[in-house]
Amino acid sequence: MSAPAATLHAKRRDRLRELMAIDLPGLMLVVTDLANVRYLTGFSGSNAVLVVGPTSAGDLLGTDGRYRDQVAMQAPDLPVVIDRDTLIATLVRAAPTAYAVEPSLTVGDFESVRRIHGPPTVAASLVEQLRRVKDPLELAALERACSITVAAFAALAGEIRVGDAEVALARRLEQLFGELGAEDRAFDSIVGSGPHSAIPHHEPGARRLAAGDLLVIDAGARVDGYHADMTRTFVVAAEPAAWQAEVHAAVAEAQQRATAGYLPGAEARAVHALARATIADAGLADAFTHGLGHGVGLRIHEAPMIGERSNGTLEADMAITVEPGVYLPGRGGVRIEDTLVVTDAGPRILTEAPRGLAVVG
Amino acid sequence: MSAPAATLHAKRRDRLRELMAIDLPGLMLVVTDLANVRYLTGFSGSNAVLVVGPTSAGDLLGTDGRYRDQVAMQAPDLPVVIDRDTLIATLVRAAPTAYAVEPSLTVGDFESVRRIHGPPTVAASLVEQLRRVKDPLELAALERACSITVAAFAALAGEIRVGDAEVALARRLEQLFGELGAEDRAFDSIVGSGPHSAIPHHEPGARRLAAGDLLVIDAGARVDGYHADMTRTFVVAAEPAAWQAEVHAAVAEAQQRATAGYLPGAEARAVHALARATIADAGLADAFTHGLGHGVGLRIHEAPMIGERSNGTLEADMAITVEPGVYLPGRGGVRIEDTLVVTDAGPRILTEAPRGLAVVG
Repeated sequence: MSAPAATLHAKRRDRLRELMAIDLPGLMLVVTDLANVRYLTGFSGSNAVLVVGPTSAGDLLGTDGRYRDQVAMQAPDLPVVIDRDTLIATLVRAAPTAYAVEPSLTVGDFESVRRIHGPPTVAASLVEQLRRVKDPLELAALERACSITVAAFAALAGEIRVGDAEVALARRLEQLFGELGAEDRAFDSIVGSGPHSAIPHHEPGARRLAAGDLLVIDAGARVDGYHADMTRTFVVAAEPAAWQAEVHAAVAEAQQRATAGYLPGAEARAVHALARATIADAGLADAFTHGLGHGVGLRIHEAPMIGERSNGTLEADMAITVEPGVYLPGRGGVRIEDTLVVTDAGPRILTEAPRGLAVVG
Repeated sequence: MSAPAATLHAKRRDRLRELMAIDLPGLMLVVTDLANVRYLTGFSGSNAVLVVGPTSAGDLLGTDGRYRDQVAMQAPDLPVVIDRDTLIATLVRAAPTAYAVEPSLTVGDFESVRRIHGPPTVAASLVEQLRRVKDPLELAALERACSITVAAFAALAGEIRVGDAEVALARRLEQLFGELGAEDRAFDSIVGSGPHSAIPHHEPGARRLAAGDLLVIDAGARVDGYHADMTRTFVVAAEPAAWQAEVHAAVAEAQQRATAGYLPGAEARAVHALARATIADAGLADAFTHGLGHGVGLRIHEAPMIGERSNGTLEADMAITVEPGVYLPGRGGVRIEDTLVVTDAGPRILTEAPRGLAVVG
């Protein structure tokens, strides 16, 4: 990790301290969510605990012996505790007089720390709040992840054939992500064909593409820990049927209108309502069964959520998906999704690629 | 889900009730770990809460609207609550007078249920305890996952060439899993070449294979939710160097001796010590840096753990890995791993395949 990056992570911890001064005055915060630790330190190991003190002198990072070299390289600016009982050993070394834990801590671990240091305060999701707005380094990683995703979708579309199994397309797409420079898929790729396209979170299986199928592909590449998310819907080896074209047109219009509404100051639930109203105008209100979008970053789903019960407003440099869908059980479904960045100049789409109902196979 | 399977899940819940009668008399147990819910009900959705009552009349399963059809099909024998606020709605319907939660519950969710129903008891890992010993349906799924894994390793070994990127081999292996009938990989595949083979949990990257590299491949297929786990170590396009052959021989001997010790009644830590002693005899004690194995099933890592601090003894029908390794930082590493089932007649290896230091590429 270069010195500027170490400075960046120290600055992130200082911003967290500003929130802690208001919410948790005088307390240490024990950060156990791995994405939060990575955000605040640069350390990407699978076992980590970060104590953030009221001042930077109290900051302390814990992990185990597997990561001795990696933690020294990725987080050179922090004192480190190496111990197999990472949580307990790190807390013992930090010796807090008063402390808080994240709401994602398990009650099992809560009981362990309570026995040694007394009951902690349960903090709000402070780091997740910071992570909503991306800095330039984060946006650069998201851009790379999204541009790999776009290129892989385009390559896959040219290869799809009638008779291909859903699971084979999923694995081939992930192979393309790798060839194009991604470290891995961002999440379990969704490939739903025919009636399966009507299942929003369908797990790709042995079903083989048939002419006339709708085909929903929802996937993304991961780069430097940052997650892309993109969906396109195709028709297999046939001109779209009238109902397929109608449903697709309604979703495309909803997606386009909602995208235009992703502006600083917009209410999250109002943007969702915009997409919903467009789909309702097409007589398909009941068939849009999920929220409009979610933040992406070090996790594939993170704040802010964009749905009918969301609170809060959008801010510049949030990275969010816009993914309306319409699902007709037993027949098929359509979803169109982009990852975009909210900016004062309007939404900057990171997964720019044709959204029409293309024929493949 | 067929009727016999529903009966099977009801029987699993009854076995849990026997443990609850001892540990949690009169209490309802709120099961929130998704693998535990799947084990006890057959429902595999990504959002689920199961209340297990002191009698079967109190059993109640919760999820959200995305899974309305799936839950009816997979868990036809249980009353179901469908609500977006799944945990709260399910508990409100169950209306417990006294209840317990699993230690994996988050403190955020703990606070939510405490506010409504008062503080719950934090239970021990009761379902995980049941899941250690597999029944015939589980063993059949593990067998399929392991035989696919073996076949995919063999096919990949024939394709490997000098210059291949680690990440490309990982994705190709996962593609083979799919072609052979797996639903997905069991975990993030590890492909470590050259110096990277000395990093036990290396994430495959852009490094390209060079002649003379050690090459560790640790991966598995998933079938019906059950996880295979297998590791083999190769040498790339060269006769093994003397040090490579020596390290490999030490690991192979440790693996073979430890495997023979996986017997009902054996102490977990004694089996680990057997592998450690063999590696120590080769002068490599400090280079074996992790535990010997772990249970596999609905999770890739589950009870029992086989390490120097493990308690407990092995029992028939536990499915466990045996995976000693030796890691020489900067030079290379060797790991050999099988998944096996403990039986009264001796270990039954599910990932049977040659373990020699084969040359590939």
